[in-house]
Amino acid sequence: MPLTAFWHPLRVQVRDYLQACLKDDLAAALVVSVLLIPQSLAYAMLAGLPPQVGLYASLLPPLMYALLGSSPFLNVGPVAVLALMILQTLQLAPAGVSPSEAALVLAAEVGLLLGAAALLRLDALAALLSVPVLHGFETGATIAIAASQLPVLLGAQASGANLPELWSSARSHGFEAQGIASLFGIVALLALLAVRRLPKGLPARMAPLGVLLIGILAAWALDPQGLARVGTLPPLALHLTVPRLNTHLWMTMLPGAALIALLGYVSSLAVAESLARRVGQRVFPRRELMGLAGANLAAALTGGMPAAASFSRSVLMSDAGSRTRMTGVFVAGLMGLALVTLSPLLAWCPKPVLAASIMAAVLAGVSLQPYRDAWRYDRAEALLMTVVTLLVLGVSITAALGLGVLGAIALLLKRSARPHVALIGRIPGTEHYRNVERYQVELDPEVMGLRIDESLLFLNGRSLADVVQAHLDTRPGTRRVLLQMSPVNSIDFSGLSALKDLHEALARQGRRLDLSEVKGPVLDRLKAGGWDDWFCGRLFMSHHQGMRDEH
Amino acid sequence: MPLTAFWHPLRVQVRDYLQACLKDDLAAALVVSVLLIPQSLAYAMLAGLPPQVGLYASLLPPLMYALLGSSPFLNVGPVAVLALMILQTLQLAPAGVSPSEAALVLAAEVGLLLGAAALLRLDALAALLSVPVLHGFETGATIAIAASQLPVLLGAQASGANLPELWSSARSHGFEAQGIASLFGIVALLALLAVRRLPKGLPARMAPLGVLLIGILAAWALDPQGLARVGTLPPLALHLTVPRLNTHLWMTMLPGAALIALLGYVSSLAVAESLARRVGQRVFPRRELMGLAGANLAAALTGGMPAAASFSRSVLMSDAGSRTRMTGVFVAGLMGLALVTLSPLLAWCPKPVLAASIMAAVLAGVSLQPYRDAWRYDRAEALLMTVVTLLVLGVSITAALGLGVLGAIALLLKRSARPHVALIGRIPGTEHYRNVERYQVELDPEVMGLRIDESLLFLNGRSLADVVQAHLDTRPGTRRVLLQMSPVNSIDFSGLSALKDLHEALARQGRRLDLSEVKGPVLDRLKAGGWDDWFCGRLFMSHHQGMRDEH
Repeated sequence: MPLTAFWHPLRVQVRDYLQACLKDDLAAALVVSVLLIPQSLAYAMLAGLPPQVGLYASLLPPLMYALLGSSPFLNVGPVAVLALMILQTLQLAPAGVSPSEAALVLAAEVGLLLGAAALLRLDALAALLSVPVLHGFETGATIAIAASQLPVLLGAQASGANLPELWSSARSHGFEAQGIASLFGIVALLALLAVRRLPKGLPARMAPLGVLLIGILAAWALDPQGLARVGTLPPLALHLTVPRLNTHLWMTMLPGAALIALLGYVSSLAVAESLARRVGQRVFPRRELMGLAGANLAAALTGGMPAAASFSRSVLMSDAGSRTRMTGVFVAGLMGLALVTLSPLLAWCPKPVLAASIMAAVLAGVSLQPYRDAWRYDRAEALLMTVVTLLVLGVSITAALGLGVLGAIALLLKRSARPHVALIGRIPGTEHYRNVERYQVELDPEVMGLRIDESLLFLNGRSLADVVQAHLDTRPGTRRVLLQMSPVNSIDFSGLSALKDLHEALARQGRRLDLSEVKGPVLDRLKAGGWDDWFCGRLFMSHHQGMRDEH
Repeated sequence: MPLTAFWHPLRVQVRDYLQACLKDDLAAALVVSVLLIPQSLAYAMLAGLPPQVGLYASLLPPLMYALLGSSPFLNVGPVAVLALMILQTLQLAPAGVSPSEAALVLAAEVGLLLGAAALLRLDALAALLSVPVLHGFETGATIAIAASQLPVLLGAQASGANLPELWSSARSHGFEAQGIASLFGIVALLALLAVRRLPKGLPARMAPLGVLLIGILAAWALDPQGLARVGTLPPLALHLTVPRLNTHLWMTMLPGAALIALLGYVSSLAVAESLARRVGQRVFPRRELMGLAGANLAAALTGGMPAAASFSRSVLMSDAGSRTRMTGVFVAGLMGLALVTLSPLLAWCPKPVLAASIMAAVLAGVSLQPYRDAWRYDRAEALLMTVVTLLVLGVSITAALGLGVLGAIALLLKRSARPHVALIGRIPGTEHYRNVERYQVELDPEVMGLRIDESLLFLNGRSLADVVQAHLDTRPGTRRVLLQMSPVNSIDFSGLSALKDLHEALARQGRRLDLSEVKGPVLDRLKAGGWDDWFCGRLFMSHHQGMRDEH
């Protein structure tokens, strides 16, 4: 795509701005920033990183997404689920590397992987995460995040990235909570949950920042002993940070980076699609890949951590009336302003209140309905969803996503291992042929008509000869097999081999293989691939013509 | 499956034996044993194991396969490609474990994995290895095997499981060959290659054993210094060997065992299918899984190594007229006899002659034709095939198969990421609807008819709403969308979510979604899954009826 393709729409937008969209976008940016300030601090804490890392990840990434991305609704920055994945990945960093340094490497890798995927047009990889795997993962991650924040909320000492780790850590500390921290945390959590019940509007939108401010004021006024606070943030110093070029560090971060890139892309794309569908717009997956790649490289070069589109903030941005991607530019500006002016205030922010804001944000998304729906529809898929959730809670995100993807592929293989091939006969008095199992049709004693009902790919190709043989076993008098190919949209190299094997098997049995109604593009490919070198049968334009052939 | 299902066919066969098949099966067993003796010694050497391990892997495994398997043509025992995989896997065994002990663990794991796959009905996993991956792998493995035998053939000191390892090992030994070994090896190789040109028949079949015998006699008569020989075999002692129960050892062998199981199963199934097709018979993948599981467990318990069906020996067995699985029982008996009587003779067998027999056996299978065919048909798949070959040669079988499977899935995702959805219109004066791009049809200005041409699965589901939106963008006056579902054979949970998303998106745009000609089984599943709870459109038996609906 030429560079002008990025710049041109932006230029047009800027020109129309003063008349049409400026006010809406600025308002949306304000609303989003109000939520982004507590979230950026909280998600950095969740990822085991200093709070300013979250703020830096909220500055340039939305700006880069505005330049390169495609959706006017996405807010790109720190995300809760990614924060948990970052925490687990950083645990693997070699000794002597600080978490902040490792986070830069991770963000750089995520950006490079997404950029490579955009260049190689691998946007289709989003399909790897099927709905059961995604639902199962998100629920598990949400519960794991909420559980990991519970000790912070209560001022306790436990920590861990999954439930068994948390449990054993809590047990070794004797399950001790701290009164003053618990008070701040529980009150903040109850307040946030109560505000949820308000109708949508300004009060509901301001609630997260309001609770944060009240918490800060209370901490400042009472100054209770032993209450953990965010602490002094370093002054805004947006300079170039270059991730360490250490091969060992890059290699150990790579598997985590690949999963963060995949999940960040898929979840951002899902948010963008769902918001675009509301207004009948379309989403361009490659542009999303580029926007996220740019955002993560920006995070890596300016002291941030891996970023993606946040579901809650993007919905807010859409509801608040954002019209163009310029909203992202305003968000970046407002966050920069906040960093300069609010630092002394944010230093007083009590960590239990931040923990409460994380828990309130993620728990809103937990629903068991998808499990019930999946169970009603397909038990194997419901089982897969549950296993993925349990793996996230009990083992790790890597194990959950890895086994989830493999499980989905195994289910797909099971489902598609045998191609759907119907025995078809003639509807008396017509030239139409239909499935013998559903229609009263006439069969020819010597010519067997079969309809292949799907594309021939490596998933189902290897069973083709066997499926045809099973039909032949029921009608041993067959002298010729005529395959109706009209439903076949594509044939891959394995499918071609399957046709060749079938052709050869029938030839050995003294039976001829003919084809009818092969789609144009499919036939072109077959001919280019040397089909005429080995195929001894005939091709017919219509199945009826093929059935009547007397050669 | 009840036990009688295994025993009954066997009993019937035994009863008919004396009249009909005994002679044919005995003759086939003799011919196969003649090839199996040199191959079992050679493949054990290739796997870095003592020669008797190969002989033990040729004893009970064919017997167990005869009991549990389904094909009358397969000879199960040591296989060249698996031997290379065993060599690479045994390199990972922890210190203090002998290769023979590790081979028992490996065979036990392969047997247990195949048995578990049979119980879980996972026979469809064979489709994981697409034709390009399988071809690419086999060619690479064949060349790597031949290269690894070259130093043995020439009496040189180099060793290694891939080309870079072999090269650096040979260089560190100064590329020195040994005159007498080279003489034995090269003469044997030339003799074996020359015999290849003989017409099929007794002389051609006896050639491998003949060359071996001449080599043995020459070694015995000349007794040249420095010629490596097989050496004294321990006397036949078929007792129970129990694989070591060491968790660490089992865990390190597991990934290799999984690949050996997958590859052994897929290659055996492919041989069985190709031999069955010749005579119009069918193969039962689950029975093959059970037969191979039994064979590998037998190998683990009697001092052998992982076993599978050998392509060359199975073709020989089929050509020699094997009629029933009893042939396997006779092979086991003959191999036992050979172990007892031929041990002193085999001890004199020169290793360069064995190396020549390996090279001659595997090089027969190398062909560049599949690469050319794939290149003509699909460049991406040809590239995948080549990359897999290069990975086998340059890195390892694990890397090659792992990346090969991922690459095939990536190509599949790319190919199927967008569901095939055609805009259809009415053929004037009829009730038939066809693709507007191929037929002269009438379109309704307000009702858009779309035909979904494939099953809705997680691979393509997520793009459904986008594909429909793209059609809507060309006809913004559309008030209602009618999807013709007759080509849809199945809808998984992700596909159901895609339909739901599409339904919701259209509702938000004030458009209704209707369906026509939904297949019976698909509709049943949708209804069981709570379809009526959210679907506001209508279902029509025929597309024409749906287009004319005035509600």
